Amino acid sequence: MPSFDNCCKDKLIASSFAINGYGKSMGLLQIEELGQIETPILLTNTLAVGSVANGLVHYMMKQNPGIGNVDGTVNPLVLECNDGRLNNIRKIVLGINEVENAINSADINLEEGSIGAGAGMICHGLKGGIGSSSRVIKIDNKDYYLGVLVNSNFGHSSSKDLIIRGEAIGKKIASDKKEEDKGSIIVVVATNIGLDTNQLKRLIRRCSIGIGRTGSYIGHGSGDVFVGFSTENRVKKNVVYQDLKVIDNNYMNLLFEAVVDATEEAIYNSMINSPKVKGYLDEVESLKRWIK
Amino acid sequence: MPSFDNCCKDKLIASSFAINGYGKSMGLLQIEELGQIETPILLTNTLAVGSVANGLVHYMMKQNPGIGNVDGTVNPLVLECNDGRLNNIRKIVLGINEVENAINSADINLEEGSIGAGAGMICHGLKGGIGSSSRVIKIDNKDYYLGVLVNSNFGHSSSKDLIIRGEAIGKKIASDKKEEDKGSIIVVVATNIGLDTNQLKRLIRRCSIGIGRTGSYIGHGSGDVFVGFSTENRVKKNVVYQDLKVIDNNYMNLLFEAVVDATEEAIYNSMINSPKVKGYLDEVESLKRWIK
Amino acid sequence: MPSFDNCCKDKLIASSFAINGYGKSMGLLQIEELGQIETPILLTNTLAVGSVANGLVHYMMKQNPGIGNVDGTVNPLVLECNDGRLNNIRKIVLGINEVENAINSADINLEEGSIGAGAGMICHGLKGGIGSSSRVIKIDNKDYYLGVLVNSNFGHSSSKDLIIRGEAIGKKIASDKKEEDKGSIIVVVATNIGLDTNQLKRLIRRCSIGIGRTGSYIGHGSGDVFVGFSTENRVKKNVVYQDLKVIDNNYMNLLFEAVVDATEEAIYNSMINSPKVKGYLDEVESLKRWIK
Amino acid sequence: MPSFDNCCKDKLIASSFAINGYGKSMGLLQIEELGQIETPILLTNTLAVGSVANGLVHYMMKQNPGIGNVDGTVNPLVLECNDGRLNNIRKIVLGINEVENAINSADINLEEGSIGAGAGMICHGLKGGIGSSSRVIKIDNKDYYLGVLVNSNFGHSSSKDLIIRGEAIGKKIASDKKEEDKGSIIVVVATNIGLDTNQLKRLIRRCSIGIGRTGSYIGHGSGDVFVGFSTENRVKKNVVYQDLKVIDNNYMNLLFEAVVDATEEAIYNSMINSPKVKGYLDEVESLKRWIK
Repeated sequence: MPSFDNCCKDKLIASSFAINGYGKSMGLLQIEELGQIETPILLTNTLAVGSVANGLVHYMMKQNPGIGNVDGTVNPLVLECNDGRLNNIRKIVLGINEVENAINSADINLEEGSIGAGAGMICHGLKGGIGSSSRVIKIDNKDYYLGVLVNSNFGHSSSKDLIIRGEAIGKKIASDKKEEDKGSIIVVVATNIGLDTNQLKRLIRRCSIGIGRTGSYIGHGSGDVFVGFSTENRVKKNVVYQDLKVIDNNYMNLLFEAVVDATEEAIYNSMINSPKVKGYLDEVESLKRWIK
Repeated sequence: MPSFDNCCKDKLIASSFAINGYGKSMGLLQIEELGQIETPILLTNTLAVGSVANGLVHYMMKQNPGIGNVDGTVNPLVLECNDGRLNNIRKIVLGINEVENAINSADINLEEGSIGAGAGMICHGLKGGIGSSSRVIKIDNKDYYLGVLVNSNFGHSSSKDLIIRGEAIGKKIASDKKEEDKGSIIVVVATNIGLDTNQLKRLIRRCSIGIGRTGSYIGHGSGDVFVGFSTENRVKKNVVYQDLKVIDNNYMNLLFEAVVDATEEAIYNSMINSPKVKGYLDEVESLKRWIK
Repeated sequence: MPSFDNCCKDKLIASSFAINGYGKSMGLLQIEELGQIETPILLTNTLAVGSVANGLVHYMMKQNPGIGNVDGTVNPLVLECNDGRLNNIRKIVLGINEVENAINSADINLEEGSIGAGAGMICHGLKGGIGSSSRVIKIDNKDYYLGVLVNSNFGHSSSKDLIIRGEAIGKKIASDKKEEDKGSIIVVVATNIGLDTNQLKRLIRRCSIGIGRTGSYIGHGSGDVFVGFSTENRVKKNVVYQDLKVIDNNYMNLLFEAVVDATEEAIYNSMINSPKVKGYLDEVESLKRWIK
Repeated sequence: MPSFDNCCKDKLIASSFAINGYGKSMGLLQIEELGQIETPILLTNTLAVGSVANGLVHYMMKQNPGIGNVDGTVNPLVLECNDGRLNNIRKIVLGINEVENAINSADINLEEGSIGAGAGMICHGLKGGIGSSSRVIKIDNKDYYLGVLVNSNFGHSSSKDLIIRGEAIGKKIASDKKEEDKGSIIVVVATNIGLDTNQLKRLIRRCSIGIGRTGSYIGHGSGDVFVGFSTENRVKKNVVYQDLKVIDNNYMNLLFEAVVDATEEAIYNSMINSPKVKGYLDEVESLKRWIK
């Protein structure tokens, strides 16, 4: 297991954007103001946000004894999707211990599909969940990385409008019954290219395009929320000036194309890597049956 | 005790604005998107937001068995200030039961000063907390009301810059030592004048001016967050069209002047009605000593 | 020729959104504040915005002698794309007379393609310009309309990434040479469904998805700007309350799907209806050659 | 006369904020997107924005032959207040030549009061116009500067609510007749402290507080618009990375206090330095009569 650093100590430059803010994610107000994140990013279900945020605050206090004491407080970042069709969401079972365990077992060898907050996700009427994708971006003969992680829980209840890489596969696998585009998606974008908070906002706004390409029209309900950060410029303590290295805007198209492509692919991966799942009321088919 | 209605059933048109978003308040994302509130508004301290939001979700589920079941989920609205100088904020003592009790004991005969979330507030170096003020607005020979409630926790650590109704009283009561403007304020504005969400945002943006008039320059840390709602147009269920009655823009100046004045006065009331208080580490003087 | 009404007298409820604000369009500040439009919407090229706005102000003053006199001023709404590859954009040839003629010759029987501001547009490396599309939306057994007009000037300089209704046609018609996504698009959305300004903002934000489906990733440069308005609720003069009829949010998905589809189709129409055009330096091929 | 550099070549990092966007200023869309300015900042009256923007585009093209040619286009920044009570605003007399002359005669030895766009301004019922103020900010034993320039055109039509440095002087000089807060203000903030666009937005948002302290409640009409820029980090051409030096957030309070104070003082200076003026219909008294 790798060790993660304590981002409360050396905050990351970040940004957030909601193409649809009909959601309950927490921590975005301060990101919008300061352009920084200072905790791990937790994903959970809609009604558990408060309880999970409470767990994250406890975890951060344990890790940083100065919080709420000689130092300031901390801004827990908790993002959510509604898993109420597969999970009995009224039972809020995640608390202080579950959050600590989740963070301690986080691993760079990430599982995809029906794992963690992804367990109860439904995407385009099929099983969704956690998916990831990344791109190498070559700038000035150096390789940089842009990675995307999604928790996919959106799209029509039927799969009719699902598009995969430009092919309208949904029409082949779904019945004629047309249903509304419902649900939500969380997208987290990370890159080692130096970006300021304004550039990050421009970058993650494009995640919408990747979602749209899978067949969604960004339905009324519910939250489609994106968070992005760069690992290049950590906020130093006890300095007068922060020295930031930010990419020239003429290179932004390389990032824009990468984030759209990787968001689209991460959604497919979230579906392909999820098996058929039986919920507390319902069973949801996997995309695996059609895509091999 | 009055009975409060269940705003989850007939949502209120609302808006939020942060002149300084360096805070941890929760529930604002959805208000920004839909322009509606659907829970009681809870005030607490910074690190308790998650735990109190969890309590509010439980309260709402108890009151509305359809939440997370046949109905959608719910957006808990929890606003915070940091009371870490008077209260041991690392002990998070407010949970499901405390939230339920707080809501059930809410009373239209509101106490001001060091009560509830106001207990640990410091404002301009003196004891702050809950304050309120209201204005009658006469339009077309009819009386309307605009009320403001604040939880005041901002201003310089010394009282030197405190201004009361245009009088620089701070210079008389504080030492020469100049300190930074720190801390935060929550302002909740309610009116029975019909307003849409865009008009509400314009209205509450002016709360900044009332705060500034007390001597603050809206310091870097922390969150100065405003929420406003109108009681005129409740969101009806099972209709095709909502019929909204919204005031003509030519009358907005009456509301703008009222909200600035009432915010300023609510801050004074929060200080005048707070006695000297001894915290877990500290003692904070009351404005009462100087203003009689 | 139809007569258009004077929208300065009975303003329209409106909203604007820029998925990419790297543009020079004028008039959006006030729309964002008041949620209203009060002039015809003019489309022109980037460097002509000032001159065309000046023309629009003169037109409005002529039509409304009270402007700048007993009444207030007026907010000219002028949206732009850069036509500098086909047109010598440094020659600013549109002034007061051209604007008056353009407005007076506006006709409900709209031409598409290389007409007006569309004359110099290039879209996905092919000839773009003005395009339109509309959808009928049935609500409660009544037919409503949503119309979209675009001025399309975006996409890669080669056509390689052009997608038409899910088919990656660009790969068939373009060389291997990959170029950046450049340029801009203006989208104007109109509906007779009653919407408030916040609902209009949610609606037009989805235009991004329609653009993305044609193969764009919303390149760095330049402005992708959307304006939407509803004809249902005109702002009345000399009233205390405006009575607004706004659609219940449960019907928003019908509008969201319509606006995405119609934006996508309007872009295709802008290309299919544009012939091959020779500019002052350059010649641009039409999509017609491939699509019949 | 000093020479001004060509900010189109080495753009400045900037931000804009409208506490009241009921105005017609132009160029803000792109500043919001890219966080940069690339032209001189011109102030004019409301109906002349288009004509003056056209003049500025011509000036920029003359200075930069690549605009609209081998280079991109240019974003003219033109900010406005309504001078329609003193000036016959329907006559739009500023064009290409007047703009070129104005820029060429710009001088670091700035006049205040009824000069340029300030000629027709009315503030708190008295003569307003151009005012300036600056503060020295000491950081790490080095002196930095923050300067504010206003064009003041706001406040009640009577002077009753005018406050000067905490003294309610308006009550002494105005009749009892209470009138609405009307009009607008433009504030331009410049500093040589390194700031990114997000920090600049936080900084200029505080200009509202300085305005409020003079007695305004930010009336419904019209635009109160702020633009800020830093001279520290010019955008370099032909680089892969921009190296930015941005002040640590712990120093932001020094800037926040300075910008509030300097905005307040610049407004007083705009009034004190304006003589009694006779307009085309009206005469406006000067503050000089009361303040010596």
